[in-house]
Amino acid sequence: MKPVKVGLLGLGTVGTGVVRIVEGHQEDLSSQVGSPITIERIAVKHLEKYRSVNVDQSKLTEDPWAVIRDPEIDVIVEVMGGIEQTKTYILEALERGKHIVTANKDLMALHGAEILAKAQEKQCDVFYEASVAGGIPIIRTLIEGFSSDRIMKIMGIVNGTTNFILTKMSQEGASYEDVLAEAQELGYAEADPTSDVEGLDAARKMAILGTLGFRTNVELQDVSVKGISQVTKEDIAYAKRLGYEMKLLGIAERQDDEFSISVQPTMVRKGHPIAAVNGVFNAVYVYGEAVGETMFYGAGAGEMPTATSVVADLVAVIKNLKLGVNGLKAIVPYKPKKLKTDEQIMYKNFILLHVDDKAGVLAQITQVFAQYNVSLESVVQQPNEHNPDAEIIIVTHNASKASMDEVLNHFEGLEVIRRIKSVYRVEG
Amino acid sequence: MKPVKVGLLGLGTVGTGVVRIVEGHQEDLSSQVGSPITIERIAVKHLEKYRSVNVDQSKLTEDPWAVIRDPEIDVIVEVMGGIEQTKTYILEALERGKHIVTANKDLMALHGAEILAKAQEKQCDVFYEASVAGGIPIIRTLIEGFSSDRIMKIMGIVNGTTNFILTKMSQEGASYEDVLAEAQELGYAEADPTSDVEGLDAARKMAILGTLGFRTNVELQDVSVKGISQVTKEDIAYAKRLGYEMKLLGIAERQDDEFSISVQPTMVRKGHPIAAVNGVFNAVYVYGEAVGETMFYGAGAGEMPTATSVVADLVAVIKNLKLGVNGLKAIVPYKPKKLKTDEQIMYKNFILLHVDDKAGVLAQITQVFAQYNVSLESVVQQPNEHNPDAEIIIVTHNASKASMDEVLNHFEGLEVIRRIKSVYRVEG
Repeated sequence: MKPVKVGLLGLGTVGTGVVRIVEGHQEDLSSQVGSPITIERIAVKHLEKYRSVNVDQSKLTEDPWAVIRDPEIDVIVEVMGGIEQTKTYILEALERGKHIVTANKDLMALHGAEILAKAQEKQCDVFYEASVAGGIPIIRTLIEGFSSDRIMKIMGIVNGTTNFILTKMSQEGASYEDVLAEAQELGYAEADPTSDVEGLDAARKMAILGTLGFRTNVELQDVSVKGISQVTKEDIAYAKRLGYEMKLLGIAERQDDEFSISVQPTMVRKGHPIAAVNGVFNAVYVYGEAVGETMFYGAGAGEMPTATSVVADLVAVIKNLKLGVNGLKAIVPYKPKKLKTDEQIMYKNFILLHVDDKAGVLAQITQVFAQYNVSLESVVQQPNEHNPDAEIIIVTHNASKASMDEVLNHFEGLEVIRRIKSVYRVEG
Repeated sequence: MKPVKVGLLGLGTVGTGVVRIVEGHQEDLSSQVGSPITIERIAVKHLEKYRSVNVDQSKLTEDPWAVIRDPEIDVIVEVMGGIEQTKTYILEALERGKHIVTANKDLMALHGAEILAKAQEKQCDVFYEASVAGGIPIIRTLIEGFSSDRIMKIMGIVNGTTNFILTKMSQEGASYEDVLAEAQELGYAEADPTSDVEGLDAARKMAILGTLGFRTNVELQDVSVKGISQVTKEDIAYAKRLGYEMKLLGIAERQDDEFSISVQPTMVRKGHPIAAVNGVFNAVYVYGEAVGETMFYGAGAGEMPTATSVVADLVAVIKNLKLGVNGLKAIVPYKPKKLKTDEQIMYKNFILLHVDDKAGVLAQITQVFAQYNVSLESVVQQPNEHNPDAEIIIVTHNASKASMDEVLNHFEGLEVIRRIKSVYRVEG
C-alpha cells in the first residue's frame, strides 16, 4: 500500500525519538493505519551534525520551507520549537492542506486559537498531545475520555524541572540555589532557567488544559503566575511539619461558567494523590462533576515519552486520513470566557509572620482576619529560633483572594509585624 | 437537527447515571456531536419500580427485544449485565446495524472476540470503556494514547471491593472476615462476594486490558487467578514491616512476543505509585517501552463515574455516526498468542515459613533455594511469638515460577518445615 509521507521539522531530542519510534515500531504502526509510514524529509539546523539515530543524509535540509512546500508530504510533525517563525511554517502548511502534529506548547498556548481556526477552515487536523505533560495522554483524556462530564478542577504538576527542584529540597533539606545548580548540571534545568522556575512554562500548559477542560478560549494572560524562586528550605520544612508537600501547581477551576487559572507554589496535603508525585515526573489531577477524582501520572518530558505522544498523534492523523475525516473532530472552544473576580477565587492560605514577641500581638493579628471575614483553621505562635521575634503560623479556611489581599495589605501597615515571611496557597 | 436516538438496556445504578448525564449535560453533549441525544426506549426488569431519576413511563418496556428491534434506534447502550442472554441481544442489535456501548466486562472478557468480529462485519462500533476501571479512560489510553508504543507491563488495581478490604486490613490491622462483613454492610461487597474476593472480576478486566495492550486475543483461561480470601492480618503486618503494601494486582507483562497474565495478592513496595492507591479507588499502571512509567487513577465503579465512561463512548459513537466512519477504527487483535511458560515467568517472592527452632534449619532451607537456582534478597529468622517454632521470612530475587514451584514442592517434603505459612508475589 502507498506509504503515508511525513515531513519532520526538527531533529533534536524529540525529533530523534520520533524517528526511532516510527522506524522501530514500523510493523505495529502500519498494522494499525493500514500502510507504511515514511519520514520523507527532515528540516534540521545544521546538516553536518552528529546524530544518534541513522537517517538518510539525502532527506535532510536546512530549509523548513522545502519540507512544507513538498507536495508529496501529507503530515508535518513540528518538533523544532520556536514561536513566531514556527507559526508561519504551520499556517503555510495548513494552507497547503497538510495536517499538523506538534509538541510545541508555546506555540499552542500563544497562537492555538489562530492555528486551530485555520485548520478548521482547511479541514486539517492539528494534534498537540505532546505539548502538555510529555508522555501522559491528558489532552485526549480531556477531549474524549471526559467528553461527557463537566470538568470542575484541573491541578497539574506540569513542569518537571521545578518538581525535581522542590522534591530535592523537600527530601534533602537543601536550598533552592544548590538544587537548581544540581539540576542544571544534570540537564534537568536550562542555563537560563527563568521560564521553568518562574512558572511561565507551566502557565502555558495550563492555558492549553484550561481551554480543553472548560471549552473556552483561555489565553496566557488569563493565568496568574508565581514561580518557585522565592521558596526557601524553611518554607518547605514548615510545610512538611504541618503535613504538606510543596508543589508548583497549576490550578484551573470553575464554578458554574466562571473560571480561574493560576500557577503557584502550593502546599498540598500529604495523602492527596498529587502530593506524592516526585522528581521530574508530571501528573494531572482532574475533578469531574460526574467522574469525581482522577489522576494521570507519567514522564513529562524526555526524548521517548514525548515522542510516544507525537507518534500517537501521527497515528490518529493517518487513521483520519484513511477515513477522509481529518479536521472534522476538532474541538473549538464554544463557551464565552468569564474569569472569576478576586472576590470569587477562594482557597486556603498558609501565612508565616515574624512579629514582636510581646503580649497582645496575636489578638491584634487575628482581629485583622476577623475584620475581613477570613476564618482560621489553625494558628500557632512560637519563639523564632534565630532571633528575638516570635513566629506566627496561620492556616486559613477557604477565603477569597480579595479578602486575603486586604488582610496582607493591612499587615503591611501593622507595626507589630516585622515581616510577612511567606504566603502560600494550600490544597488537599 | 434530527436527534440521535439511543436505546438503553438496563436502568439500574449505571443506567440511572447515564440518564442523568445525558439529560443534565444535554447542552454540552449536543454542542459536541452536533445534534440532540434522546434516550428513546429503556428496557427494565420491573416497570413499576421506584426510580431516583425522572423517566417518561411510556419509554419503559420489560422486553429488551422491543428496544433492539426498534428501527428508530441508532445506538444501544447495554448496562443490564448478564452474559449469554445479553450476548444474543448485542449480536442481534449489531445484525440490525446498531452501534453498541457496553459497560459489561463479563460479556467482553468472555465473548469480546465474537462481538467485535460481528461488529466489524456490520461496520458497527462497539465501545466498552466502562467495562474496566469505571471512570478511568484506560481503554482509550491503550488504544489511542499509546498506539505508538510497545506496552511491556500493565499492573492494575481493578477491583474496588478487594482494594477496600485490603486497605482497611492494612490501616486498621483488622481481619479479612471482619472487613468483608463491613464492606457488605456498606454495599461495597455483594452478599456472595466470590467473584470479587476470588479475583475473577479482576481477571476478566485484565483479559480485556491484556488484549488491548498486547494486541493479541487474551482469553479468560489465560489468566492465572488467586484471590484475597487467604490473606491474613499477619501477612499484611509482615508486608508493612518489610516496606510493602498488600494489593490485589492484575499483572500483564510481556517479553518479546510472549506474555503472561495473572491476578494475585501482591506485596508492592511503598513508593511505587500503585502502592498508594487506597480504598475503593482503582488504578492502572502502564509501562511502555518508549513512554516509561505511567499511571491512571480514579473511581473504579459507582453510578456517575461509570456513566461518565458510558456517555463518553456514546459521544464517540455519535461523532463517528455523523462522519460515517463507524466500525472503521476497530482494533482487532492481530498478533498470534504466545503464553510464557512457567520457566519464563519471573518475579520476586515473599515466603513465610514456620520451622523447627533448632540448629542447621536455616542452612537446610537456603540449600533448597540454591539447588533450584533461586537467589535470595533477604532472609530473617526469628522466634515465633505464639508457639515454639521459629519463623523464617525470605524475599527472593527474581525467580522463575517453575523454580519456585519446585522449591515449594521440595519444602512440602522437608521435615524441619512445619508449615509454609504464606507465599506472595513481590513487585516494585
